[in-house]
Order: sequence, then structure tokens, then C-alpha cells
Amino acid sequence: MEHNEQDVRPLAEQVSDRLMDYILKQELKSGERMPTEIELTEQLGVGRSTIREAVKILASRNILEVRHGAGTFVADNVGITEDPLGFAFIRDKRKLTHDLLEVRMLIEPPIAAMAARNATQEDIVLLEESYNKVERLILAGLPYLKEDVIYHQRIAAASKNLVVPNLTPIISQAVNLFTTRTGCRLRKETIETHRAVLEAIKRRDSIAAQDAMVLHLVYNRNLLREIEAQEDAKLKEKEEQNA
Amino acid sequence: MEHNEQDVRPLAEQVSDRLMDYILKQELKSGERMPTEIELTEQLGVGRSTIREAVKILASRNILEVRHGAGTFVADNVGITEDPLGFAFIRDKRKLTHDLLEVRMLIEPPIAAMAARNATQEDIVLLEESYNKVERLILAGLPYLKEDVIYHQRIAAASKNLVVPNLTPIISQAVNLFTTRTGCRLRKETIETHRAVLEAIKRRDSIAAQDAMVLHLVYNRNLLREIEAQEDAKLKEKEEQNA
Repeated sequence: MEHNEQDVRPLAEQVSDRLMDYILKQELKSGERMPTEIELTEQLGVGRSTIREAVKILASRNILEVRHGAGTFVADNVGITEDPLGFAFIRDKRKLTHDLLEVRMLIEPPIAAMAARNATQEDIVLLEESYNKVERLILAGLPYLKEDVIYHQRIAAASKNLVVPNLTPIISQAVNLFTTRTGCRLRKETIETHRAVLEAIKRRDSIAAQDAMVLHLVYNRNLLREIEAQEDAKLKEKEEQNA
Repeated sequence: MEHNEQDVRPLAEQVSDRLMDYILKQELKSGERMPTEIELTEQLGVGRSTIREAVKILASRNILEVRHGAGTFVADNVGITEDPLGFAFIRDKRKLTHDLLEVRMLIEPPIAAMAARNATQEDIVLLEESYNKVERLILAGLPYLKEDVIYHQRIAAASKNLVVPNLTPIISQAVNLFTTRTGCRLRKETIETHRAVLEAIKRRDSIAAQDAMVLHLVYNRNLLREIEAQEDAKLKEKEEQNA
């Protein structure tokens, strides 16, 4: 495709901005359908290949989703990519694990307190459902990480702060990274602290919800310290053998 | 371009993943140059148009940056787009402004405390420089927003927490949204509280740094309340006139 070299940005990018404006002006929500390629070609006065390229740009930013044979739709979690904060590019995973926990400690206890104040009855039903799933999976010795992340996401949604649910990539990345380093050794403590958070939210006790979440994260941090001390001891032993 | 329909994802997307792996394995940093299109064509065994498309995908995620005539480079703030948390898609801007302030109140005071503990001498020089620029712009009655955001970003960088600088889009979006609603009316308070944060970081007083940042945000929130009360009063007046 030839572009006018005087033009600052490629045509497809300019068209992707116009598609973005369209989504915002029409107030299209996640899962809603975009006009067809032909309709867009007519509306925007550009060729089909440009439309297709612009759609790809927005798909890579998780704004649109192309379902083959069905059309183009506004994506779930619109505008938030899997790794929105670029954690893949942080190389020191040991420090990253600690620093993520430090940030979780700043945000998650007050988020639990907000949830205790603002959760609707529906939020509480969803949260309880998620708590039960995690408990069942843990007791059955099955992988429960995915459901664990959902539990924390539902607390975030129950906070009713518009920004907080958008921070959940931090939580899910932290949980994933944490468990690749520690395995799933906190089964009993996870069940207990999850239950304490849930119960506090149900009785609208924001201080207790905050405390329970602090405890949950402190257990996590203690385990991390323990495992790293073991790793360091092994490393030292090896070094001494080689010396 | 023809794709094999059996393939789950388009070829360009698969190639963009391989480029991403290359960046991570080679530990390329922001500003470092990627191989040329021809070199990539040979290394990855795909055509130039596919390479070009893959590069565009990564450019739209702010991972690569194409500088015309100079080549392709790893982007600044690699992997973090301008609006990583999709705030453009949150429609209730009034609530969003409040909710962003609520989240800033959770994270920025402890970040200021971390900065007081961990800032290097170089961080402090940069922070002071940024403080001085904001002060000069405010006193000259010039727009200072961009430099204000840089001031807050430099505090985040001085915290030495790896995750915290990646949260600055929250801060910059909050500052932008706040000032579109309030204008730049907090000139005196901005200078004073910025100075208090800087001085506390310089003398390694983490509690004072935290307090000064709380004060900064409380001034912001009070102004927001005041302006909204005026807006509401005007609206009510209009409604009564129409009644």
C-alpha cells in the first residue's frame, strides 16, 4: 500500500482512530457488533484493505475482536491488553514478585474495604460462588489459580470504583508470578483468609475486610521469604561444594 | 495476503510473538535498534510484508517504534500504551475523576514514602529540576501540566519499586482529567505541596513525604468538590428557571 510520505501517520492508523471515535460516540459496549467492512468502507471513504488493517491495529490493543464468519465486535475488557503494564519486559522476576506484592498491599486491603461498603447483593452472590469454587478445588487438590484470580477480580468489581477493576491485571500477574515461584502451598491459609474477607464483606464490616486482606497478603509474603531463604541456602551450599 | 484458514491466528500475529521473544531474549532495551527488515526476513523465514505487518502490531502496542529513514527501535516505556487501562472507554467522567483520585490516594502517598527511603542522588537532582520547572511555569502563568506529570513520574521512578513506574499512566490520566474539569486553579497549593514532598524526600523523611502527598491530593479533592458544588448550583438554577 502506498502512503503519502507527507502524512505524519500511516492511513490505517488514522482510520483506527476514526473507528475508535465511532465506538466511543455510539457508546458501543463489549460484545456489541461493529458495522461490516463494506459499510465501514462507505462511511469512511477508504478501501477495504485499509479498514482491515485498522481493525487489526485495534484488535492488537484489545479494542476490537474479529470472530471469523461472524463479524467484528467490541472486545471484552475493552482497551485492556493481557499485559497492559508491560511486566513481560521487567527482567528481575524475583524483585518483580516482591514489588508486585508491595503494590497489592497498597491497593487490595482498601479495595476489600470499599467492597464491604459498596457491594450489591448480586456482587455478594458472585463472590460467594467464587469462594466456594476455590475452596472445592483446593480441597480436591486441583489447580485453583484461575478461580483465585476471579475471586480477587470480583472483590474489585464489588468496590464500585470505576478504576479498580482495571487494575486487576496487576493482581492476576502477581498471583501467576507468585505461584510459579512458590507452588500452591498456602491451601489452608488461602481458604481461611478468603473466607474471612467474604464474611466481612457480607456483614458490611470494612475494617475487618481490610484486615483479612492484609493477613492474606502477609501469609503470601511470609511464604515467599521462606522459599527464597531455602533457595539461597541451596545456592550457598552449592557454592561451598564448588569452592 | 493469503493465510492458511486452519491456522488459529494470522501469520503476522504469530511473527509478532516471535519478534517479542527476540526482544526479550536479546534483552533489548528502550531505544535499542532492531535488525533490518531484510535481516528479519532471513531470520524468521517469512516475507517482508508479513514482517512489516508484525512490526505494526507491536508498534500499536508501544513495543516497537518505526522511525522513518532510521529503522525500527524498541519503544520508550516499552509495552505500555498511552491508555493502558482503557480509561477512554469509561463514560462517566465525573465519577471517573473521583475514582482516580481515590486510587491516587491509595498509591501516591506510600510511593512518596518509598521515594524518601530509596531515591538515589541522581533521582533527587532530577526531581528538583522538575520541581523548579513546574514552579517557574506556574509563576509565569504558563501551562505546567506536562511537567507536573513528569514530577509525579520522577517520584515513582525514585521509589525503586519495579511496578510503580508502570502505574504512572493512572497518575497522568488522573491529572489530565482533573484539570480539564477544574482548570489550573491550585497554583499556590501545588507549589507548596510539591516543595514539601521534595524537601521530605531530600531529608529521607518518609512519613513527612507521605503526609505532604496526602495534603497535595486532599487540596485537589477539595477543589473538585467546590467546583462540582458550583456546577450543581448552576444546573439547579437553570432547572428552576425552566420550571
